[in-house]
Amino acid sequence: MKHLSILGSTGSIGRNVLKIVEQFPDKFKVTAVAAKYNIDLVAEQIRVFHPDVAVVYDEEHACELRKKVPQASGVEIFYGIEGYIRAATLQRIDMVVMAIVGSAGLIPTLRAIEAGKDVALANKETLVMAGEIVMNAAIRHGVHILPIDSEHSAVFQCLAGHPRQDLEKIILTASGGPFLTTPIHELADIEPEDALAHPTWQMGRKISIDSATMMNKGFEIIEAKHLFGVDLTQIDVVIHPQSVVHSMVSFCDGTIIAQMGIPDMKAAIAYAMSHPNRLPLRQPLPDFTKIGALTFEKPDMEKFPCLFLAYEACRCGGTLPAVLNAVNEIAVEQFLNKKIGFLTIPDIVRNVMMAHETVYHPSLDAILEADRWAREKAREFITRRL
Amino acid sequence: MKHLSILGSTGSIGRNVLKIVEQFPDKFKVTAVAAKYNIDLVAEQIRVFHPDVAVVYDEEHACELRKKVPQASGVEIFYGIEGYIRAATLQRIDMVVMAIVGSAGLIPTLRAIEAGKDVALANKETLVMAGEIVMNAAIRHGVHILPIDSEHSAVFQCLAGHPRQDLEKIILTASGGPFLTTPIHELADIEPEDALAHPTWQMGRKISIDSATMMNKGFEIIEAKHLFGVDLTQIDVVIHPQSVVHSMVSFCDGTIIAQMGIPDMKAAIAYAMSHPNRLPLRQPLPDFTKIGALTFEKPDMEKFPCLFLAYEACRCGGTLPAVLNAVNEIAVEQFLNKKIGFLTIPDIVRNVMMAHETVYHPSLDAILEADRWAREKAREFITRRL
Repeated sequence: MKHLSILGSTGSIGRNVLKIVEQFPDKFKVTAVAAKYNIDLVAEQIRVFHPDVAVVYDEEHACELRKKVPQASGVEIFYGIEGYIRAATLQRIDMVVMAIVGSAGLIPTLRAIEAGKDVALANKETLVMAGEIVMNAAIRHGVHILPIDSEHSAVFQCLAGHPRQDLEKIILTASGGPFLTTPIHELADIEPEDALAHPTWQMGRKISIDSATMMNKGFEIIEAKHLFGVDLTQIDVVIHPQSVVHSMVSFCDGTIIAQMGIPDMKAAIAYAMSHPNRLPLRQPLPDFTKIGALTFEKPDMEKFPCLFLAYEACRCGGTLPAVLNAVNEIAVEQFLNKKIGFLTIPDIVRNVMMAHETVYHPSLDAILEADRWAREKAREFITRRL
Repeated sequence: MKHLSILGSTGSIGRNVLKIVEQFPDKFKVTAVAAKYNIDLVAEQIRVFHPDVAVVYDEEHACELRKKVPQASGVEIFYGIEGYIRAATLQRIDMVVMAIVGSAGLIPTLRAIEAGKDVALANKETLVMAGEIVMNAAIRHGVHILPIDSEHSAVFQCLAGHPRQDLEKIILTASGGPFLTTPIHELADIEPEDALAHPTWQMGRKISIDSATMMNKGFEIIEAKHLFGVDLTQIDVVIHPQSVVHSMVSFCDGTIIAQMGIPDMKAAIAYAMSHPNRLPLRQPLPDFTKIGALTFEKPDMEKFPCLFLAYEACRCGGTLPAVLNAVNEIAVEQFLNKKIGFLTIPDIVRNVMMAHETVYHPSLDAILEADRWAREKAREFITRRL
């Protein structure tokens, strides 16, 4: 029986984790759930999964939640960053599922690692912002970081059983998002609702926009670099619109190992939860004879400048990836609020990156300071434009 | 330094093994070479690789070889089945590369296993004829059977690092051979030279014809059943004309792992030779952006009845797969000699299979007797038709 703490339990990943727990109640116990504002769903999760601890964003929501939960449930309710950290470090948990979106995931992840917990990591920003610090902490504390992102889970699965020194390249596949075939001159007019309609994957709002700009793939490059300890030159991106091949690796003998499946996060989530074994999810296999053809093409960096900017941030390193992430978070939020256009997202990111004085081999404080600075700059930039 | 004995050193696989040895002289030493009639090439191999032992088919060829090799070379020359067995069991070898074509590979393979040698197995017939006996012997003597066939090497690589109990299916890919798109009514007129022109793989004559009839894929099903200890129902065949995906496996969580590469035997051979490590062959990777699309379709059993017959032989088991193999060997030989037509191959196989009284859980003697019987029957059948 594996005891789980699920940070981000009401999001797309968190809900899938809970579905898997429901399917395999003899393998997993939910010890803590943590969310932001969706009090009704947290209350429902408490009712169904009987966690010991529940955490929400602030005192107000905690009070509200307390009213909704019968006293007999025995659940302890906390809030804020201290609450999230408590949920991530409870003595009786074996694994933290880190499915909070955005930079808020970083500190709880680090605390979980320091407390010796394995981390099933869906939060990209943690590695984008502080990959070196996080991976070094994981080594120091002897914990496993198990990727939940389908691409990184694929790479992780492809590497299993093969000596690491034989690895040559990691080939991340990208669906290309909803605008793969949209002419470049039409990108300026894109509305949030167009960008949210991903052709193959069902995901949260922030990551759907990041997929549409291909910033998501850029983050994945940075993530992969840290997770698998490779150089940027060892990471390729290839557009694969069918989303059947979730990613690949190549070895020094010219061999490629690929991981495939239907475009559904459940298998990647379940693999992180039960590694090295698999859970009999009985998901349908991709039907090759129906799919007909798997196609591959080069990504267009001119059309998707966010991908280029992420490459640049990764190449430069230091605090620049944290800046990339922070500005992007603000820009996407403003795009979703219809305050800025689709093409303004890379514009803001580029401008703030250029204004940043990178700190190399930064401390955690320097990273958080860069994050704070970048958000402020991004907001300034947007205000000036409005 | 791994000491190799290469049985079938002058064939397509054997020559590739020697190329790899030449590329990595610090990793491999050729201790024995064995071939059939190609005396000139064996003499050349002795000159270049300085084996201790060389074996040819019969006394006449052995005498001829002795004349071609300078006495100072120190090579001992043997012939016949005793010679092959000697080459397969030499005390100082670590691995036998079994690349003899046809049923002649069976006994030397078994003797190598009994002598505690790992076997890199390219000879399909060994497992088709006597899979149970061979695999049990390998377990009893604690030796590894390392597949050289690209499909089985692919499956072997896909399974590495994943718990065997999670395996659901083995998905063997097939190029479909040179007649994938040939209308069924034109198959009767096919000449050996058409059938020898394989669209993606460069191979020996016998296996090229087996690919054209798809009997080769049928043999691979039987091989896979024994090598990986699965049921026939766990093996699927899918037509994949580009020959980029060399085969795949699926797991209980809906995940597929696939192995890919350019259609060149060298990577599979090298993997068998150096498993679990890889050799830096620096072969080109498949260029996905150039290939454009990987396609998959169902095999047509009506058009390729040999595939159906192999399924039947595998389902029935006992001595029937040995009969399948023996009749096919005779039929292919006669087709290459232009004595029978292309569609007569499955005809003969079907007729002899139907006339056979299968012995279940056969001894090696029963298998060899079935092999002898089937060859005789096949010859009778052909004589009657001429």
